[in-house]
Amino acid sequence: MVSVRLLLLSAAPLLLCGCLGTQGGNVLVLPGEHSHWLNMRVILEELAERNHSVTVLVFTASPSIDYSKPERFGFKVYDVPFEKQDWLAVNDDFIKWWMYESQNASMLEVGLWIRDLMQKMNVLTLNTCKSMFNNEELLESLRQSKFDALLSDPMSPCSDLMADALGLPLIFSLRFSFGMVLERQCAQMPAPSSYVPSPELAYTDQMTFFERVHNFVMYTFLDVLTNVHFLTTMDPLYSEIKGRPTRFCEIMGKADIWLIRTYWDFEYPRPFLPNFKFVGGLHCKPAKPLSEAMEEFVQSSGDDGVVVFSLGSMVKNLTKERGNTIATALGQIPQKVLWRYSGEKPETLAPNTRVYKWIPQNDLLGHPKTKAFITHGGTNGLYEAIYHGVPMVGIPLFADQPVNIMHMKTKGAAVMMDFNKMTSKDLVDGLNSVINDPSYKENMMRLSSLHHDQPMKPLDTAVFWIEFVMRNKGAKHLRVESHNLSWYQYHCLDVAAALLSVVALIIIVSVKTCTFCFRKTKARQKTE
Amino acid sequence: MVSVRLLLLSAAPLLLCGCLGTQGGNVLVLPGEHSHWLNMRVILEELAERNHSVTVLVFTASPSIDYSKPERFGFKVYDVPFEKQDWLAVNDDFIKWWMYESQNASMLEVGLWIRDLMQKMNVLTLNTCKSMFNNEELLESLRQSKFDALLSDPMSPCSDLMADALGLPLIFSLRFSFGMVLERQCAQMPAPSSYVPSPELAYTDQMTFFERVHNFVMYTFLDVLTNVHFLTTMDPLYSEIKGRPTRFCEIMGKADIWLIRTYWDFEYPRPFLPNFKFVGGLHCKPAKPLSEAMEEFVQSSGDDGVVVFSLGSMVKNLTKERGNTIATALGQIPQKVLWRYSGEKPETLAPNTRVYKWIPQNDLLGHPKTKAFITHGGTNGLYEAIYHGVPMVGIPLFADQPVNIMHMKTKGAAVMMDFNKMTSKDLVDGLNSVINDPSYKENMMRLSSLHHDQPMKPLDTAVFWIEFVMRNKGAKHLRVESHNLSWYQYHCLDVAAALLSVVALIIIVSVKTCTFCFRKTKARQKTE
Repeated sequence: MVSVRLLLLSAAPLLLCGCLGTQGGNVLVLPGEHSHWLNMRVILEELAERNHSVTVLVFTASPSIDYSKPERFGFKVYDVPFEKQDWLAVNDDFIKWWMYESQNASMLEVGLWIRDLMQKMNVLTLNTCKSMFNNEELLESLRQSKFDALLSDPMSPCSDLMADALGLPLIFSLRFSFGMVLERQCAQMPAPSSYVPSPELAYTDQMTFFERVHNFVMYTFLDVLTNVHFLTTMDPLYSEIKGRPTRFCEIMGKADIWLIRTYWDFEYPRPFLPNFKFVGGLHCKPAKPLSEAMEEFVQSSGDDGVVVFSLGSMVKNLTKERGNTIATALGQIPQKVLWRYSGEKPETLAPNTRVYKWIPQNDLLGHPKTKAFITHGGTNGLYEAIYHGVPMVGIPLFADQPVNIMHMKTKGAAVMMDFNKMTSKDLVDGLNSVINDPSYKENMMRLSSLHHDQPMKPLDTAVFWIEFVMRNKGAKHLRVESHNLSWYQYHCLDVAAALLSVVALIIIVSVKTCTFCFRKTKARQKTE
Repeated sequence: MVSVRLLLLSAAPLLLCGCLGTQGGNVLVLPGEHSHWLNMRVILEELAERNHSVTVLVFTASPSIDYSKPERFGFKVYDVPFEKQDWLAVNDDFIKWWMYESQNASMLEVGLWIRDLMQKMNVLTLNTCKSMFNNEELLESLRQSKFDALLSDPMSPCSDLMADALGLPLIFSLRFSFGMVLERQCAQMPAPSSYVPSPELAYTDQMTFFERVHNFVMYTFLDVLTNVHFLTTMDPLYSEIKGRPTRFCEIMGKADIWLIRTYWDFEYPRPFLPNFKFVGGLHCKPAKPLSEAMEEFVQSSGDDGVVVFSLGSMVKNLTKERGNTIATALGQIPQKVLWRYSGEKPETLAPNTRVYKWIPQNDLLGHPKTKAFITHGGTNGLYEAIYHGVPMVGIPLFADQPVNIMHMKTKGAAVMMDFNKMTSKDLVDGLNSVINDPSYKENMMRLSSLHHDQPMKPLDTAVFWIEFVMRNKGAKHLRVESHNLSWYQYHCLDVAAALLSVVALIIIVSVKTCTFCFRKTKARQKTE
């Protein structure tokens, strides 16, 4: 069995130019999957462009990373005791359940489903971690590679533990974690629940009293839930691998830099820490020309323009009924529609709509004829829409998509659809609104202007901090001291207890003294 | 009486080039005094350089702004009912008391002195504010000027109220406020007292239990003290000027951008907000050549090099005894010394020491022969030392100086002296340490390297955000929603109270129901 396959397919040109290890750094990357990978590979390409050597550590069953394809960076592949299909099956279950069943499920069913999903994911996580850390050949090869830093997506299991094991500074790339638990508990970011809504709730930073109660309860609930998960699953795993009692958050919290894949064009302002760098939209770039056939179709739309439609790379198929509802709606608008969809062609597909297995989404969104973007609301597509200033019709499906679309809706740059309940008329109305009501375009252009009006481009910011970490062997000067405090010390509960004790002592002594003096005086009066 | 004197002495070249009002913006500036002014004028020069029109609003009694001197920006001067001498007298009282008397004062004396000082300063503040807002001619002229933004130092009285009155976006330039009250209460920056030391205490971010108690008590004390000041002095003044009940913090908190005059090379990492931009050392630049005479003196030091010595622009004189103690010490080191000092020449002044009324401090600190910097620890000089990597002997006198030097000491880049207690031997030992123990130089070079290793130069960052505010008529997308919450809402006390009430209600109802059922059962048993 070849447990370590070194595929430095594409590092060859770099080696030829003699730049590796001389001017450039040496980065190990443990990426996330799906859209996370698409975002991270933009960083990796830029790192390679700047003469850094980049090695992506990937497991054989990776559902979305094609390590056989030549790239500007190299791959190191390790075996895991499961197949790509196992991972995809969990994924598909997750998506189908969320898209079609979660709406009508009872609380009990939701709870059981979450438990079931977490168990399945835990199996994959544990197997992936152990496959890395039990593979002495892999570890030795990584040690020999003398990396300068490790860049990872927290979605990649045990990537922080790998940085710890190799003694490397760590850079995370993150949209947000479940309940922002990693940011709040592991990175120590303050998030007052009074105005920082949990990303699981579709609230803005302006909450009513009952929304604030809901938010407070949600944070507490998620804290309990994730801490149980940490205590029962992650801490034992980390302790086992490290060979001493280890907390998951302790290792996660060692990250030098947290690259957050959003910015204040999209996020509600909130407190953060010096090692948080906001790099939302780093993958966006000016549109390139379309293929001749596509350009011809786009131009044929005349003054009405086109609508770009994609539900992302993870949704391959729709039910017949949903597909037809959507296709019927698309047939009723005067625009031409370019729909990325790899499922069965809906029967009601109208002549104005063309279905593609893949579309050059960024180039289409940047085309002057594009009037609107129908999207599931993934962060990558959302930022491409912000970058090019295209108003959106959001049909959120799962994960961060509902909260993403809700952000854009409250900023007046999108209308939001309910995937399961929307009728053809709803979609037509939504499209007509964002296309014909100029406020949507204006609001989107305002966000676009904020996005472009930053001191530095997001990709440059991301690369700067990765290079900084390599140059300086970390960024400890940006890491808050609260990592070394317990939760009760952090919240000054010990200080409050001490001060209250002193006050109580003073009161007791005063009362006792007064009582004693009063009795003495009374006794003396009596004897007199 | 000429109540508004428009001195656009130096804007002439800009007007000639035809750039004003076309490409560039129009900035109104209400600066601070002394070192604050020195720092801010660097920004103003850069703004002028970038074709912006800059008008500095200054009162006739300004102790440190020479508005008769030609500058690249213009001045608008208004009368106040006090003289420069009145301001300087309060200043001198403050400095002398802090330097010579505060050490031996009892708590009562300190308290009375603070009260006395605040009363004197209040008189100046109130008079300055009212002179601006009662001067209709001035206000009308400012209104007519159609500024795009107001840049101010919070030290400048009512500058935020002026921005409000003129409807201008506001940018603050700030080192820190007393107890960080403005940042915490008015700007809503979270500062957990468990690891963010109050700047009044010489603690690091690593505090013992008792230091944390002290810090907690200090924050509470300063909050009470300043809130009493706000309630009794500032709120009534602001309400009177605005003609409706107005809170000081409400107006202060409207600031779009807070330019903080430090960075993480110097500060301990802590949470902050999206509209906080750290621009420490923006005034620093590469050294220019010295005058011929000074260069000759510096070169005459040979391999021993030179020591640069300044206690800042505010300390004009020392007592004879302190002067002689210092001069004696300087005479005992092999280095040559350049001492900025405008007081009486000490009798013990040795031939290796030259006294200057003014020195080109930045150029001297950037000279390769410079081995050490003896400083009071003002932020400007401290950043010049960081910029050029010169280790320091700190003799802090007042204000932020003790905490500044303490920061540098804990980072291993400075030794700290007690101005009143130090002997000549102490100063000689201190100088020998920072010059001969290589760790001081190494630590300072590490800070210097962090300072230079930023995505953008501090001055460019400051100017970017000022220009951003002008381009976008503010920076509301960076302003947290907590400004619209009361303190109990912010801390979720209403939510906690509601949840506790629900829990209490459930318990009471349960207990009552159980008791009722129990009684019923018992009664039934009895009747049976």
